[in-house]
Amino acid sequence: MSKYFALQTPMGWNSYDYYDTNVTEADVLKNAEYMAKHLKPYGWEYVVVDIQWYAYNTASMRDKFQYIPFGRNEMDEFGRLLPCPDKFPSSVGGAGFKPLADKIHALGLKFGIHVMRGIPRLAAHHYLPILGTDVTADMVADPSSVSEWNPDMYGVRNSDAGQKYYDSIIDLYASWGVDFIKVDDICSTGFNPHRCYGRKHEVEMLHRAIEKCGRPIVLSLSPGPAAVEESWHYSKFANMWRITDDFWDKWPDLLHMFDRCEKWQDHVRPGNWPDCDMLPLGRLGKGFGHEWTCNFTPDEQKTMMTLWCIFGSPLMLGAELTLLDDWTLSLLQNEKLLHLENGTFLSRQVLRNRGKCVWAAVDPKTGERYIALFNLSDQPQTISIPVSECAAAFSEGIFDAKAGEWEEVWSATPCDFADSVGGHIPPHGALLFHKN
Amino acid sequence: MSKYFALQTPMGWNSYDYYDTNVTEADVLKNAEYMAKHLKPYGWEYVVVDIQWYAYNTASMRDKFQYIPFGRNEMDEFGRLLPCPDKFPSSVGGAGFKPLADKIHALGLKFGIHVMRGIPRLAAHHYLPILGTDVTADMVADPSSVSEWNPDMYGVRNSDAGQKYYDSIIDLYASWGVDFIKVDDICSTGFNPHRCYGRKHEVEMLHRAIEKCGRPIVLSLSPGPAAVEESWHYSKFANMWRITDDFWDKWPDLLHMFDRCEKWQDHVRPGNWPDCDMLPLGRLGKGFGHEWTCNFTPDEQKTMMTLWCIFGSPLMLGAELTLLDDWTLSLLQNEKLLHLENGTFLSRQVLRNRGKCVWAAVDPKTGERYIALFNLSDQPQTISIPVSECAAAFSEGIFDAKAGEWEEVWSATPCDFADSVGGHIPPHGALLFHKN
Amino acid sequence: MSKYFALQTPMGWNSYDYYDTNVTEADVLKNAEYMAKHLKPYGWEYVVVDIQWYAYNTASMRDKFQYIPFGRNEMDEFGRLLPCPDKFPSSVGGAGFKPLADKIHALGLKFGIHVMRGIPRLAAHHYLPILGTDVTADMVADPSSVSEWNPDMYGVRNSDAGQKYYDSIIDLYASWGVDFIKVDDICSTGFNPHRCYGRKHEVEMLHRAIEKCGRPIVLSLSPGPAAVEESWHYSKFANMWRITDDFWDKWPDLLHMFDRCEKWQDHVRPGNWPDCDMLPLGRLGKGFGHEWTCNFTPDEQKTMMTLWCIFGSPLMLGAELTLLDDWTLSLLQNEKLLHLENGTFLSRQVLRNRGKCVWAAVDPKTGERYIALFNLSDQPQTISIPVSECAAAFSEGIFDAKAGEWEEVWSATPCDFADSVGGHIPPHGALLFHKN
Amino acid sequence: MSKYFALQTPMGWNSYDYYDTNVTEADVLKNAEYMAKHLKPYGWEYVVVDIQWYAYNTASMRDKFQYIPFGRNEMDEFGRLLPCPDKFPSSVGGAGFKPLADKIHALGLKFGIHVMRGIPRLAAHHYLPILGTDVTADMVADPSSVSEWNPDMYGVRNSDAGQKYYDSIIDLYASWGVDFIKVDDICSTGFNPHRCYGRKHEVEMLHRAIEKCGRPIVLSLSPGPAAVEESWHYSKFANMWRITDDFWDKWPDLLHMFDRCEKWQDHVRPGNWPDCDMLPLGRLGKGFGHEWTCNFTPDEQKTMMTLWCIFGSPLMLGAELTLLDDWTLSLLQNEKLLHLENGTFLSRQVLRNRGKCVWAAVDPKTGERYIALFNLSDQPQTISIPVSECAAAFSEGIFDAKAGEWEEVWSATPCDFADSVGGHIPPHGALLFHKN
Repeated sequence: MSKYFALQTPMGWNSYDYYDTNVTEADVLKNAEYMAKHLKPYGWEYVVVDIQWYAYNTASMRDKFQYIPFGRNEMDEFGRLLPCPDKFPSSVGGAGFKPLADKIHALGLKFGIHVMRGIPRLAAHHYLPILGTDVTADMVADPSSVSEWNPDMYGVRNSDAGQKYYDSIIDLYASWGVDFIKVDDICSTGFNPHRCYGRKHEVEMLHRAIEKCGRPIVLSLSPGPAAVEESWHYSKFANMWRITDDFWDKWPDLLHMFDRCEKWQDHVRPGNWPDCDMLPLGRLGKGFGHEWTCNFTPDEQKTMMTLWCIFGSPLMLGAELTLLDDWTLSLLQNEKLLHLENGTFLSRQVLRNRGKCVWAAVDPKTGERYIALFNLSDQPQTISIPVSECAAAFSEGIFDAKAGEWEEVWSATPCDFADSVGGHIPPHGALLFHKN
Repeated sequence: MSKYFALQTPMGWNSYDYYDTNVTEADVLKNAEYMAKHLKPYGWEYVVVDIQWYAYNTASMRDKFQYIPFGRNEMDEFGRLLPCPDKFPSSVGGAGFKPLADKIHALGLKFGIHVMRGIPRLAAHHYLPILGTDVTADMVADPSSVSEWNPDMYGVRNSDAGQKYYDSIIDLYASWGVDFIKVDDICSTGFNPHRCYGRKHEVEMLHRAIEKCGRPIVLSLSPGPAAVEESWHYSKFANMWRITDDFWDKWPDLLHMFDRCEKWQDHVRPGNWPDCDMLPLGRLGKGFGHEWTCNFTPDEQKTMMTLWCIFGSPLMLGAELTLLDDWTLSLLQNEKLLHLENGTFLSRQVLRNRGKCVWAAVDPKTGERYIALFNLSDQPQTISIPVSECAAAFSEGIFDAKAGEWEEVWSATPCDFADSVGGHIPPHGALLFHKN
Repeated sequence: MSKYFALQTPMGWNSYDYYDTNVTEADVLKNAEYMAKHLKPYGWEYVVVDIQWYAYNTASMRDKFQYIPFGRNEMDEFGRLLPCPDKFPSSVGGAGFKPLADKIHALGLKFGIHVMRGIPRLAAHHYLPILGTDVTADMVADPSSVSEWNPDMYGVRNSDAGQKYYDSIIDLYASWGVDFIKVDDICSTGFNPHRCYGRKHEVEMLHRAIEKCGRPIVLSLSPGPAAVEESWHYSKFANMWRITDDFWDKWPDLLHMFDRCEKWQDHVRPGNWPDCDMLPLGRLGKGFGHEWTCNFTPDEQKTMMTLWCIFGSPLMLGAELTLLDDWTLSLLQNEKLLHLENGTFLSRQVLRNRGKCVWAAVDPKTGERYIALFNLSDQPQTISIPVSECAAAFSEGIFDAKAGEWEEVWSATPCDFADSVGGHIPPHGALLFHKN
Repeated sequence: MSKYFALQTPMGWNSYDYYDTNVTEADVLKNAEYMAKHLKPYGWEYVVVDIQWYAYNTASMRDKFQYIPFGRNEMDEFGRLLPCPDKFPSSVGGAGFKPLADKIHALGLKFGIHVMRGIPRLAAHHYLPILGTDVTADMVADPSSVSEWNPDMYGVRNSDAGQKYYDSIIDLYASWGVDFIKVDDICSTGFNPHRCYGRKHEVEMLHRAIEKCGRPIVLSLSPGPAAVEESWHYSKFANMWRITDDFWDKWPDLLHMFDRCEKWQDHVRPGNWPDCDMLPLGRLGKGFGHEWTCNFTPDEQKTMMTLWCIFGSPLMLGAELTLLDDWTLSLLQNEKLLHLENGTFLSRQVLRNRGKCVWAAVDPKTGERYIALFNLSDQPQTISIPVSECAAAFSEGIFDAKAGEWEEVWSATPCDFADSVGGHIPPHGALLFHKN
């Protein structure tokens, strides 16, 4: 039933881009408090703790490894990972993430965690029992199913005992009050192009565990690129899935996202959100050992925000929120832009070539419309599009011309266009037009 | 705007499976007359003349070639292919297919033709002018773009003059009264897996030509398998596209179709019909030189009809209609089955494994529902499915339990099930349940 | 320098096809004794103990696993696997395979063992030291480099400490008197066609360790198919490499070997032996739980032996030797056939099509020649080939007609051919002609 | 028997890099005369006329097409292409290339031509007879086998009549006195990685035609990259085959050649020469409309010459010879360098990593040796190699230390090394050491 929730496009913050493996409870809380105060009114609500919250000594071998091989992890007697108390002090005594989740809920926000696909290697190596079964982890763990980049887990076999293991961790997360899980190493497993979605049975097991647990935990799959060929499966069993590799603040990656959005445009709908990955805005990278400010130009940032919103991607902020500057904050408080994320819009790419791209979106119930124009070239250019050409991208009538005026969203200026919208756009920049 | 028509799933007859390249005007007419009398009341309406209607001496080198290399084709002074008068006598004097189309329209049916992608090689070799331009065919034809299996055409370059060529043939077809074109060598071009949809610009050109011509000509693309990765493009520019290689009456091919339908299940909607290919029922193959009767068992035939209908594939009969036996005719006159093709149903695969498959469909406006159970194994088995499991495949509520009784469609017998439907199914067989 | 030994094509026996993981010291010895008595005079000399000689309780979970996940293995304090004393009693007290090797050497034979690529997982999990270093196994083991089918090892990183690990095991094997190692999971790693030889640095490390150890240990790589694209690398660093998947007694697999031999024909030379895999003759499969007699017909067995020999593949018997029948034994005692394996012949495929295949071989120093004719079809046929056509496959002159008579090897009958050789061949059968 | 000639590595000049499709008889002759005078003493002997010598109006549509689609070609009544008399005036009256070949032979040189795989499209379109048969070209031409980049030809079917066509053109070339054919669109056909050597039957047909014609015409295959997987086939049927795409004067392409040479190093032998493509030295590109001087630095030019020679690639000059400067000429007159091309050396890559590469070569009969050191990095560095490490790349003994002194070839300075050779090398530069 996961498809019955996440009916609006998920928006929130994720600890990875700034903290890597080293985020602490205090870090999470200060970001949550900032979000509650400055961003929640605009729709931002998820606070997500990313990878290796269970690991000790993270970053202590940074020069050699992002993830320490055969490192020490916090785990219960059933082989379920627990928060590392060095980083999450409130988790001691078996409390897990509950105290932190409670605080975040008290702020009116939702709480999410990163989950590595599979069962801890340590659980298998120590022959720990699976909760509610007489089977031990070595019989559930598949020793040949390992991540190519993270050393912590083994894949879970497609068996009753395997399902029980997934049930046991989802039940634990539900008991903590988790609202969102970003499951990693599952959406595009291995670099083998011939079986890039080779662990789909684990997606199904997670889906079933969530259905049983009674809590509407949003299921987000990483990393990408997801295989369009398998779109029906993602749609049936997950709420979000990454359509790209890790996305960072480089123009070629942003340009490439237009390809990905083109391919996935027919697969966005309430409860199913192809995911363009986190927004690398503001201050980034401290946990990786070299902090920096987003390398995108302001125009590129507007392009990114416009594309993510009109396509319907989830929005997950990578920035350290407490260090946001006014410019970046303004991107995150643009109501008319973020209105595209309310879960009611249909959107389509109208045209794309090497120099430009046009998207349109419409709320079929209200007739509210958007048109986005992107300058993909390295030179400024004037781009315009007949509204009728945008209308042709939708079923008859739903994007029809109606009375009312177009307004350019970024500049908040009304337009006196008749049949077309357009304007002068700087290199890598965007315009977004709106009409009620 | 091609997406604004073909709002019901296209159903009809195609000359290929029985006649190969050799169908004549008389053959077409007798099949059309049969259809008008026996099948039209059940929704069958298209009469489609398949490949090489323009070619002389077809089948004269049958032992060596299906398509004679460098053979003689009928063509006008602008390089547009015309019906070969040896096979279509009414076409003489420049009448083209108009007289035949008129007769078919007079029967209350629609008329379709097969179109090879591109411009005739002969047009390029003779430097013929493109209608309405001062450009000759040798500048429009791409000499490196040839079919891997048919020797008649060159691909058309993506240029203004190329568009004019496509405009000129579509205008001609519209003037004849053509309602449907099955464009070949365009959906999966070349056997190269890395560019299996390499001629998409010609699809776009055909789409634009149809938009301009003013006649709602259904655009059907062949051969398959279409690339799921490009689903957005097929959906935007075409009405039907083949999701498989040529389909014939062999069980492994039918079994494989369950794979293809699984992958394409989210892409079926009014105006957009992923196509499982023609139904090789009844008498087949005369034009290929070895006439036979459909090799599928009766149970396999029911499975085929059930899958095509609940998935929402177009139905194109390959049989010689005038030779249909009663059993086969009964498959084509089953109103409750064919009701699934009315363009209002949403359908989903509920589950599939090696032994069985379940699909469900619902009309979200009326709540009318179907559940199909398939026995994919070689042994008889009893299969049943909780209705709630089918309901879970759809958005909340639209497949909910309501009052009323389930009926098994093939046997036309009411069922006294409570929460499940099911029954005993022979090997390769199917049951189809319906509830208003 | 591994290329300076294995100058004759290796011939011997391997425990896998009959014993799987369960061969014991007694089993090995009785096969060695048989070989010394009946086969050694014909060139057979290697006795190879195959997979999991270090593992306890092998076959105890036969219904679920060929290799028990997270099972118990015998290992020294430096993470080096030792023979399991349950199966190899003479290995107790740190003796390792030395006592067994000594006995085999005393029979005038050579001793080989199977080696899984990498370092034991248990060594990494227990942070054992690498001999001669201050590094522990967890820093040498690559947690993402695992076999897709065997759970025992991790790949070794390309580092100085990694080289030390490989040095430490090769030194141990040399101290035992090992003459041959069949290293597994290294020749075609992973099923990913884009990096099928992805662990070549471990081949290089093994090669360097052998060079340093001072003992001419033959380096054999498994499994296949090796990538022809990497032929230079196999040739430079190894003595044998598998050119196919595991080979068993099925005709399609034997037929497919003609493809593989065609591709590898230019890569056979003293010290470098592309390997067609073990000969599944005689009694097989006891260790797998279902003992059987070779499924090849006598003609197919002759075809196999003829192809392996004229191509120049190593010959490794899979049969339980003590159960050999007279017919099978006669294949292994055919001197004129086995003479092809003496390391002096150049061989080439002369022609191949669906129905037949011809190979020729010549000793460029002596002019001694062979011609093999294979009937690949399912019908008997007469096949002949002009000797001049065979000669054309070699550099000028070396296969020239000389005085002397041709003899058919399998029937040991002289031929009165003039310019051609040939004869009637049963389906799947072979003739082999020889001339001094 | 093509393997019995081309026993020395072919060296010569090719018209393409400077003239593209537009070379004339006068151009060819002035280059031949220059070669006879300045280069012939150093081993240069082939003069090769490259693509479209049969075509009229070449370069007249340069802005749109390199090869004019459906252009006019000179051809005889049997569909055999003849030199275009506009460019080769001596060919008139059916003389073909004989007068030009005679002049080149009179200079003591050899004459070569470019040949597009297949039969002219015009021959098929005009149903011309195949010489010596009652079959017409339309039955020999395969209409689906076309080049992806040149519009002139159709592939030839694998039939007796197809063989007769190839016999007829090779007989014609032999009658003209052609010594070398560079057959194009045959070595790597199509961009499809799954059948990149899909026209191998045409290679076999050409080989057979050459065998029959009685003239030792060197068979060179283009374009590349040839598939290493098919090395046995190239070796059996051709004398040279391109191992790369078209090579031009860009450092990344030169760097990439080290990859290619590594892979092909075991396939170089008399009569079989993997081909690194033409040397883009001196003045280039006039026929393409933008003449320039080789973009390689002097060090890069030395690296190119050193690699081509020690690997054993054919050397085909792309420069306009009459415009050679002294520096470039000195590269082509270095006797000690070019001595590597005499067909007696065995060579091996000794090591390669990102920064450097070492090759060694030895004449096994005389013991004469070379060692080449390449600086692949962008910084100067000192590189040295123990001679024993080079020796280990060969069979035992053949590269052993012997008395005598090493000399650096480019600087012609003796070295006083003991066990190693080496020196300081500029970025992208090379040293070449020689010892008798």
